[in-house]
Amino acid sequence: MSSTDTKGFTAVAVVGKQDKERIARAALARLMEPQDSVGLALVRAVGAVDTLGIATGELGTGPNLEREISSLLADGGGPSSWAGLPASLRRWAPRVADLAPDRDLETVRRLGGRLIIPGDDLWPEQLEDLGLQEPLCLWWRGQEQPLPSARQAIALVGSRDSTNYGASVTGDFAYGLAQRGYTVVSGGAYGIDAHAHRGALSGGVAGVPTIAVMAGGVDRFYPSGNEDLLRAVATQGAVISEVPPGSAPTRYRFLQRNRIIAALASVTVVVEARWRSGALNTAHHAETIGRVVATVPGSIHSANSAGCHRLLRDGGAVCVTDVGEISELAGAIGETGSEEKDAGAAAVHDGLSLEDLILLDALPLRSTSSVEKLTVVAGLSPDAVRAGLGRLGLLGLARSERGGWKRTGKA
Amino acid sequence: MSSTDTKGFTAVAVVGKQDKERIARAALARLMEPQDSVGLALVRAVGAVDTLGIATGELGTGPNLEREISSLLADGGGPSSWAGLPASLRRWAPRVADLAPDRDLETVRRLGGRLIIPGDDLWPEQLEDLGLQEPLCLWWRGQEQPLPSARQAIALVGSRDSTNYGASVTGDFAYGLAQRGYTVVSGGAYGIDAHAHRGALSGGVAGVPTIAVMAGGVDRFYPSGNEDLLRAVATQGAVISEVPPGSAPTRYRFLQRNRIIAALASVTVVVEARWRSGALNTAHHAETIGRVVATVPGSIHSANSAGCHRLLRDGGAVCVTDVGEISELAGAIGETGSEEKDAGAAAVHDGLSLEDLILLDALPLRSTSSVEKLTVVAGLSPDAVRAGLGRLGLLGLARSERGGWKRTGKA
Repeated sequence: MSSTDTKGFTAVAVVGKQDKERIARAALARLMEPQDSVGLALVRAVGAVDTLGIATGELGTGPNLEREISSLLADGGGPSSWAGLPASLRRWAPRVADLAPDRDLETVRRLGGRLIIPGDDLWPEQLEDLGLQEPLCLWWRGQEQPLPSARQAIALVGSRDSTNYGASVTGDFAYGLAQRGYTVVSGGAYGIDAHAHRGALSGGVAGVPTIAVMAGGVDRFYPSGNEDLLRAVATQGAVISEVPPGSAPTRYRFLQRNRIIAALASVTVVVEARWRSGALNTAHHAETIGRVVATVPGSIHSANSAGCHRLLRDGGAVCVTDVGEISELAGAIGETGSEEKDAGAAAVHDGLSLEDLILLDALPLRSTSSVEKLTVVAGLSPDAVRAGLGRLGLLGLARSERGGWKRTGKA
Repeated sequence: MSSTDTKGFTAVAVVGKQDKERIARAALARLMEPQDSVGLALVRAVGAVDTLGIATGELGTGPNLEREISSLLADGGGPSSWAGLPASLRRWAPRVADLAPDRDLETVRRLGGRLIIPGDDLWPEQLEDLGLQEPLCLWWRGQEQPLPSARQAIALVGSRDSTNYGASVTGDFAYGLAQRGYTVVSGGAYGIDAHAHRGALSGGVAGVPTIAVMAGGVDRFYPSGNEDLLRAVATQGAVISEVPPGSAPTRYRFLQRNRIIAALASVTVVVEARWRSGALNTAHHAETIGRVVATVPGSIHSANSAGCHRLLRDGGAVCVTDVGEISELAGAIGETGSEEKDAGAAAVHDGLSLEDLILLDALPLRSTSSVEKLTVVAGLSPDAVRAGLGRLGLLGLARSERGGWKRTGKA
């Protein structure tokens, strides 16, 4: 970052192309709420720099662009009808005056952190699986070091009001996973999240033992009761967020944040959750992008396990009772992936289940196909299609593009 | 029963055909251990009366009969090679001198019971789903009243060394199921079985609140610590066994007995089980004949729930946490079955899932097909095939015959 102009996005003119992109994304992260579909589609269509130009009124738009965004939204599973760009421009307008990306970048740098954007060496590639919902950027507080791949990361999530049972299980799991070299991903909240970070910090052997994905800015450790814990996470691991420093952790941002937790890890383990719980939202995100959802059984008399049993009953979640079983779930994906990637195509196909072969055959090579279409073509349930796409994706045989899925050249 | 000749099977000459069959089966039940595949195939081939004649040396055999038995064994998933009829005759010979079916029938009658055989009005039709492994007969101690259909019966099984958690869950479930009019089927043992029978007796509203399927003869209430409980089960419900009065409950008979528990009920619920447990054997039997297997989650720190979690992990079992969920599993099968049975064929097919439709198409109308063959033809997993056959069977669309499966005329 060469610019120290604190006036903000007007500095883009004097810096290089890479930096222009970075500064534009930093600005857009303040302008748009997470998962602003229209905004994200606009970035896909014209890039971050021009999106910022359009949002600030420096650049105009036209019917072609509107059509392209409609098509991107449809492919990405977004709203089938949308209010048009002018409506979005009106939504963004009130925040244009507050834009100060250079100041935000300086803030995160001063806290010993940085901003990473897609394409950076340090960008976690597995976030691409979010398709159109991939974050614009990540504000990252902590030491600069490689973040884990999906197969090296396990999400442990659950209720804030954890029981002794949940606390002990989470602590054991997190410690054991960190001991085996996994990164434990969680949300930095009270209860299960805190036990997950704490256990991972005590078990960590090297690298990034734990990542806290925040719903608000990384400048503030929230909730305040976890301040010491989160400071330790930032020192030994990483504290990240898609919203810029100073952003409040709103309810909406909590829910959006969950998709990043799910996407970072190969397996999301729900340790304790009530019948309705934010942890189930994380599980749902994980399932949607074909990640493995696992859950811990507990007493049927404990309301804090009711959400876990719901996940087991609904058929999407795997029952796990120890670290070995979790590691198996991560390994089953990861190890096959790395082995198979070096083998010939025939060998790759040999390792696939019948369902995955059928799914692979159903994937188009040039265009992309939606999950809905694939369920029809392959004759598989939506859940089976999503899980299969996740596996094929990790094997490098399938790729998501604009929210749709296609075969790679390898397949 | 018109004969009171206590000398035994020689009395068959003086009674009617129905009684001859009944007396022959009573005799064979003492001659052969449960699931004696060759003996059961012989009964299929020539009937019970002639089987008894062959076993006692009154009738001869020939190569044609050997070939027919080979084919029945192969169709029924039995041993692919067998030692031939002479080997079986040698196995049965030592017991021929002990045969006294009339005495056994008199014993069960004196105890207020009876013998039922396939074809009797009182015979539980769902036992046909065991194919070649259908019991020859059942010795039944208790009031003469209709036994429940599969959809009206739920099996609750589990470890002898139950915990307080297991005891309380089993008691609640059994009471609640009996209150809703279900019959609770179990094995009369200590621990979970005893809590199941006890809960059902206290919750029973009418009919048969509970059935104890014994591994030994019904003349003796075993284990002795459950004597009072089993006496109450016999008074209000039913105590049944496939082995004649006086038979000891051997380890082998315990395992064979489990298939009858599984076949009587639409759903087998494993409440508590260690990693290795007889209850898992019952679950396996249930799965094999396409019944629903359900299990209760518990603490991952309890060794008594390890077997339940194993069932959840292996993917075969449904997680249940209350009586409503169990009733739903039984109802999902039963109610569809009864509704659809009255509707036209088109309506029946309309209600089927894609997988079940594929399976139905793969079933032959004239010959029968094995589960293995069906997995290949339908492209489904063995588990999916078994579960599907169970559903189609209850809808009256598929039928098992000689251990193989075929479509019915309805389908």
